Amino acid sequence: MSLLDRFKKREPRALSRIISYVENREENYRKVLSTLYKDTGKAYKIGLTGPPGAGKSTLMDSITEILVNDGNRVGIIAVDPSSPFTGGAFLGDRIRMQNLSSNENVFIRSMATRGSMGGLARATKDVSMVYDAYGFDYILIETVGVGQVELDIVDAADTVVVAIVPESGDVIQAMKAGLMEIANVFCVNKADREGSDRVISELNHLLQLKRERADWGYPVIPTSAVKKEGIDLLIKAIMQHKDYLMESGRFKANRKEQIRKDIIEHIRTMLSANIEDQLHSAETFENLLEDIYNRKNDPVKTAMELYDRHYSKK
Amino acid sequence: MSLLDRFKKREPRALSRIISYVENREENYRKVLSTLYKDTGKAYKIGLTGPPGAGKSTLMDSITEILVNDGNRVGIIAVDPSSPFTGGAFLGDRIRMQNLSSNENVFIRSMATRGSMGGLARATKDVSMVYDAYGFDYILIETVGVGQVELDIVDAADTVVVAIVPESGDVIQAMKAGLMEIANVFCVNKADREGSDRVISELNHLLQLKRERADWGYPVIPTSAVKKEGIDLLIKAIMQHKDYLMESGRFKANRKEQIRKDIIEHIRTMLSANIEDQLHSAETFENLLEDIYNRKNDPVKTAMELYDRHYSKK
Repeated sequence: MSLLDRFKKREPRALSRIISYVENREENYRKVLSTLYKDTGKAYKIGLTGPPGAGKSTLMDSITEILVNDGNRVGIIAVDPSSPFTGGAFLGDRIRMQNLSSNENVFIRSMATRGSMGGLARATKDVSMVYDAYGFDYILIETVGVGQVELDIVDAADTVVVAIVPESGDVIQAMKAGLMEIANVFCVNKADREGSDRVISELNHLLQLKRERADWGYPVIPTSAVKKEGIDLLIKAIMQHKDYLMESGRFKANRKEQIRKDIIEHIRTMLSANIEDQLHSAETFENLLEDIYNRKNDPVKTAMELYDRHYSKK
Repeated sequence: MSLLDRFKKREPRALSRIISYVENREENYRKVLSTLYKDTGKAYKIGLTGPPGAGKSTLMDSITEILVNDGNRVGIIAVDPSSPFTGGAFLGDRIRMQNLSSNENVFIRSMATRGSMGGLARATKDVSMVYDAYGFDYILIETVGVGQVELDIVDAADTVVVAIVPESGDVIQAMKAGLMEIANVFCVNKADREGSDRVISELNHLLQLKRERADWGYPVIPTSAVKKEGIDLLIKAIMQHKDYLMESGRFKANRKEQIRKDIIEHIRTMLSANIEDQLHSAETFENLLEDIYNRKNDPVKTAMELYDRHYSKK
């Protein structure tokens, strides 16, 4: 039986192998993605992000538990671009494996690559597509820390949950980081700790204008993932956002926008490879580099000239 | 007097304005870069990176102090992609301003953008080029934390210093993050603290094979930036690396490789803008998105077809 057949029969090992294949950009990986695409479209994607220490892993686990008990298949992608130093993804994995991975309806994949820039966001989207084709009902994408890479990663989710904790410090400062733009649901985790009321009211204050202008309410849900409190309300808020997206037509519009971005990104990747090929084969390129090094020419002008020669509209 | 004239007369305000112009990608910023390029090639670029808490800012300040006292002009670029949550760059800036910015031979620029991915590395390279044209003898590029973005940023430096501290935890784990590949000089900062001997010997052990294979010794320098101890030795190691690069011909090779990357990156940026233009103007693109959304077509195949149609070799 072929790998794809075994994948279609939902063999976890086949899933693992196809993920690795796609993640490693092995030959013809685009064909594999292309083949799998027709089986996608059923999974709902939830992104979870926030500053380090917000308890995201525990939140993810609690959300997964409820979703699975309701009869859903859940695929988790835990992305930790900074893991080399924290080791978080690996440790987290081992802890999780005990709780969740014994359940056949849960699959966890950690991603912490140091491949080419933009590669991590791209790879996350590709793995998410593979999950969708495999037949997961929900795909949870968790990113540790918040930076541009993380924002790009969760941006591909249908509903984005931003988790903060009372200790997060200045909420306003934190929210300036671009989270206000991408968050659909806010979660104040460890809400039993001191300062949580203040953080919730700060958040509500910040959201006032946004709420007035939108037809979505941007709920703020207090939770305690460790004590499993508030998780049902958090999931309810996510589902309400899902309903809102569906009823307003935004789900389709967002997905189409995502497809547009995907196409452009794929073309961009192919072009990048092509540029390098073209330049490497150009005999004169080495001379150009020498001239530029000696300040007889400059890299920006050269780039503009090469662009005009090779890529201006046909 | 024109802005460029004032820039050439080394007016700090003119420098600030041109940096902002380039950073914000204002119209014709490529022309400005192109014009400035002929005045570049004199500055030596030192990158400094390492895990959070390694004392990089203090190290950078101590290095700057010595270089300036030796009669050099020093331009600092402090990059903190994660600053929204830590606020580190801003706080650091204020502290630094008191010590260094009163000196007319030192200029500091903080960069903590959440612009498009890859934008931060590109912007750092462009600002570094502006610094070079302005007439700095040394350009110090500091990145807080370590992730792919940071690696790409310091990769553009001539000498890369990686700073760690005795508390960094598992050195081997830390070094796996890709630092071994980019570091030329290692600095164990806060070396007066417990565990520093162990870290130094772990590092030396890890470097053994690398040293045997290379014609450069990858020195490990213990420092205490706060106490200003060992900084002279660190600078000596950097200068030895500079000499090594010059004598071995690697300086020129590295710089030419950097130019090659720059050209490709500029072409890539222009192509990206072009792809979006082409697709937006295509009447059929909206229909394509609709078909893909409905699984009558797929994004990867579409990307490959569009690529063939618009960009295959002329």
